[in-house]
Amino acid sequence: MAGALTLGEIVSRLGGRVAGDPGTPIRQVGSLENAADGAITFLSSPRHRDKLAATRASAVILAKDAEASTSLPRIVCASPYLYFARVSQLFNPLTSQAPGIHPSATVSASARLGKDVSIGAGCVVGDGVTIGAGSCLYPRVVVYGGCTLGERVILHAGAVIGADGFGLAQDDAGGWVKIPQIGTVRIGDDVEVGANTTIDRGALDDTVIEQGVKLDNQIQIGHNCRIGAHTAMAGCAAVAGSTHIGRHCTFGGAAMILGHLTIVDHVNVSACTVISRSIRKPGTYTGIYPFDDNASWAKNTAQVRHLAQLAERVRALEKHGRARAPAKEKKK
Amino acid sequence: MAGALTLGEIVSRLGGRVAGDPGTPIRQVGSLENAADGAITFLSSPRHRDKLAATRASAVILAKDAEASTSLPRIVCASPYLYFARVSQLFNPLTSQAPGIHPSATVSASARLGKDVSIGAGCVVGDGVTIGAGSCLYPRVVVYGGCTLGERVILHAGAVIGADGFGLAQDDAGGWVKIPQIGTVRIGDDVEVGANTTIDRGALDDTVIEQGVKLDNQIQIGHNCRIGAHTAMAGCAAVAGSTHIGRHCTFGGAAMILGHLTIVDHVNVSACTVISRSIRKPGTYTGIYPFDDNASWAKNTAQVRHLAQLAERVRALEKHGRARAPAKEKKK
Amino acid sequence: MAGALTLGEIVSRLGGRVAGDPGTPIRQVGSLENAADGAITFLSSPRHRDKLAATRASAVILAKDAEASTSLPRIVCASPYLYFARVSQLFNPLTSQAPGIHPSATVSASARLGKDVSIGAGCVVGDGVTIGAGSCLYPRVVVYGGCTLGERVILHAGAVIGADGFGLAQDDAGGWVKIPQIGTVRIGDDVEVGANTTIDRGALDDTVIEQGVKLDNQIQIGHNCRIGAHTAMAGCAAVAGSTHIGRHCTFGGAAMILGHLTIVDHVNVSACTVISRSIRKPGTYTGIYPFDDNASWAKNTAQVRHLAQLAERVRALEKHGRARAPAKEKKK
Repeated sequence: MAGALTLGEIVSRLGGRVAGDPGTPIRQVGSLENAADGAITFLSSPRHRDKLAATRASAVILAKDAEASTSLPRIVCASPYLYFARVSQLFNPLTSQAPGIHPSATVSASARLGKDVSIGAGCVVGDGVTIGAGSCLYPRVVVYGGCTLGERVILHAGAVIGADGFGLAQDDAGGWVKIPQIGTVRIGDDVEVGANTTIDRGALDDTVIEQGVKLDNQIQIGHNCRIGAHTAMAGCAAVAGSTHIGRHCTFGGAAMILGHLTIVDHVNVSACTVISRSIRKPGTYTGIYPFDDNASWAKNTAQVRHLAQLAERVRALEKHGRARAPAKEKKK
Repeated sequence: MAGALTLGEIVSRLGGRVAGDPGTPIRQVGSLENAADGAITFLSSPRHRDKLAATRASAVILAKDAEASTSLPRIVCASPYLYFARVSQLFNPLTSQAPGIHPSATVSASARLGKDVSIGAGCVVGDGVTIGAGSCLYPRVVVYGGCTLGERVILHAGAVIGADGFGLAQDDAGGWVKIPQIGTVRIGDDVEVGANTTIDRGALDDTVIEQGVKLDNQIQIGHNCRIGAHTAMAGCAAVAGSTHIGRHCTFGGAAMILGHLTIVDHVNVSACTVISRSIRKPGTYTGIYPFDDNASWAKNTAQVRHLAQLAERVRALEKHGRARAPAKEKKK
Repeated sequence: MAGALTLGEIVSRLGGRVAGDPGTPIRQVGSLENAADGAITFLSSPRHRDKLAATRASAVILAKDAEASTSLPRIVCASPYLYFARVSQLFNPLTSQAPGIHPSATVSASARLGKDVSIGAGCVVGDGVTIGAGSCLYPRVVVYGGCTLGERVILHAGAVIGADGFGLAQDDAGGWVKIPQIGTVRIGDDVEVGANTTIDRGALDDTVIEQGVKLDNQIQIGHNCRIGAHTAMAGCAAVAGSTHIGRHCTFGGAAMILGHLTIVDHVNVSACTVISRSIRKPGTYTGIYPFDDNASWAKNTAQVRHLAQLAERVRALEKHGRARAPAKEKKK
């Protein structure tokens, strides 16, 4: 933590405008509900204005149209949430682990580590691995041989980079013949990978995670995938093998992307949605089956297995109706 | 294992009533199919009565209405499955790891450990962590700095407690700015957490798992969540950030709960169900899309993308019908 | 890597027929796109013929009907993909870790290890574990006490074998009573298990993974399951407790199989499909809810909660129609 900064000092570093006392000292960030004296909080949505009235924070970050909603000292800016992120970075480090190699880590003699790399307890870094400057591997990360990490990469505990992809050929007896996975994983600068996430090495070529990609916990990236720069995926999402995803995409939690697909830039996939074919057009895509109380679900879902038949019956009714009253029929 | 106990000794400790020889010695529990001589088994459902006829167990736990279904020595009780759990605890320890810190574990000097805590091989316990008496961390668990565990907490291998939540703000160029995650995780007494499950630290405040919560393997709990006391979740379930779940809820495997929701006490969510909005009323909720043979699925599912149109066509038919024969129309 | 082999030497080992120069030396395998000089690639589908024209590989494996599609030296065979797998095994080892126990691993004195077993950094092998000859545990695998692994088993980093199953009985107050999990896990020969996959020990009897089963990353196998020989599951699939799956089945990624079910041999379950009841007949089964652009999805999915009503309305229309014009009605 960087000691106190006044609101005036904060806007001189990050922009925006102070309303109220620019000498208000700030020592930390906090939530509307629990911020203590000396903390700055933020208002990102009008929905939270009632909480604003009760906050004990010393100052608030908010947008121009919310400026009048409090008499607390405040910073007025275009994007309160983004501004808040930057203020928090003034007071808090991005990682909580000091540079250096923990004595319980196993780092191959042939690994190449940049400046200020941090390798946590129990990590295993294989032969020929390259890790760029400023990267941080939290405890118990495994990086298999040959993989490459850029600079300022953060890998959370339990992540596994470069395990074998799932490559099998079936023999005539129905048994499985393993295909050696001789590609690697290449991870760009400023990538963050969540706890227990797995990224498989390529079968022949490499699996590639471009710069600025953010992957949450327990994500699975299959072999030969390419994830474009600045794409973000929430927890438990998975991408099957050989799928190429564009830049600046977002995937909600547990989104599932099948294999051998192509998804263009600027695609947003909702949580829990299964993407079963390529997406050629930017936009938001969803496929969540609605939940209901159990009895209603059972009653409605029983119809799903008869939908084609139902459509056929409606067609028959329409035809019958047309036969009787063609002039009135208007098919949508 | 505690040596043999007679049926009489068991009921004197746990209640219930013996039918048959109360001197029957019991040394272990077993399944109907594979229990050996000296083992006690249980009958929890009439469906398994045929297996009961063939069992080689020395005794059976069953309900009053099933009392006559065997001539084996038996314990008659209200809840055979619950009773069986308690009998098994007489013969088997709750954890298989002795108290103490394994020499390969990395425990911060500032961590506070209660009496009889067991820290397995390769565990990593960060700065300022508190672990209550009788807790057991199986091998390779990571607890990030600042987190708090109650008493008798069991964490299975590979669990990660307190990794950063997935907090990002988007800048004007579409890049991601990391929001330091300065909350912690607080876990109550008697919580059990499965293998490779991840529970993220809060962004600003804490992620809270209340007492008696049971989480199976590979569950993901996002930052700022609160899981109410005695709620249980089966494997691969996930809760996105800032969702608050009540007490005494159950979640089937791979149930997915979106973020920023509130779920009241005594809600049961079926396996593989996506909860996309808050639940204000106790009950059972389901949202499983039905599987079918592939050809039938393809035929029926093609209609899903036309459901709104289909409903519109039915409305048109109804309107047309009403125009022709209003007296007969009865809309449900 | 085994040095160079000529095409003639390859076919003398693996069968097939050379077209072109049998003296062409091969040193490695590669993809159509990126194979370098000295590499052999393969054509498994006519879709990739355009890539074949541009490949820089020295030779190609292909089927008889594609023989004329290139003038490169080639091997003609019945199953190019399977043949390619076998060629790759000539040039590449199946695992990248040397036999022996890494000094940072924790192996119980009572564990029994076969010949040439490889135990990676940070692995933990519990009391009474048996591991068959030639097996390879990559870094940070945990095998709980009592579990048995066959020969040539490969466990990828972070896999957890034999953690407690999720066995709980509910007491009268709604609290959970843990059922000690006294079974183990038995894994057959030639099984491969992906990174961070978890296989729980049985509650009373054993969880069994038969020979030749292939499990990808982040799969969860519940207690008491049996997975039949040569069955393969892609990443993030999960099987709830006490389900028995036959031999030679395949499961796509994130397929979810509920508990206490039976699935016969030769069943193929598509990715992201929820299997909610037993499958008695071989075949392919699917249950993917279709995704759509968000607006279309919202419009169509709103109808799902009214499907039973819609079907009822169609029935009413049909009845009404029949009443008016019975002779013309034809119900499908």
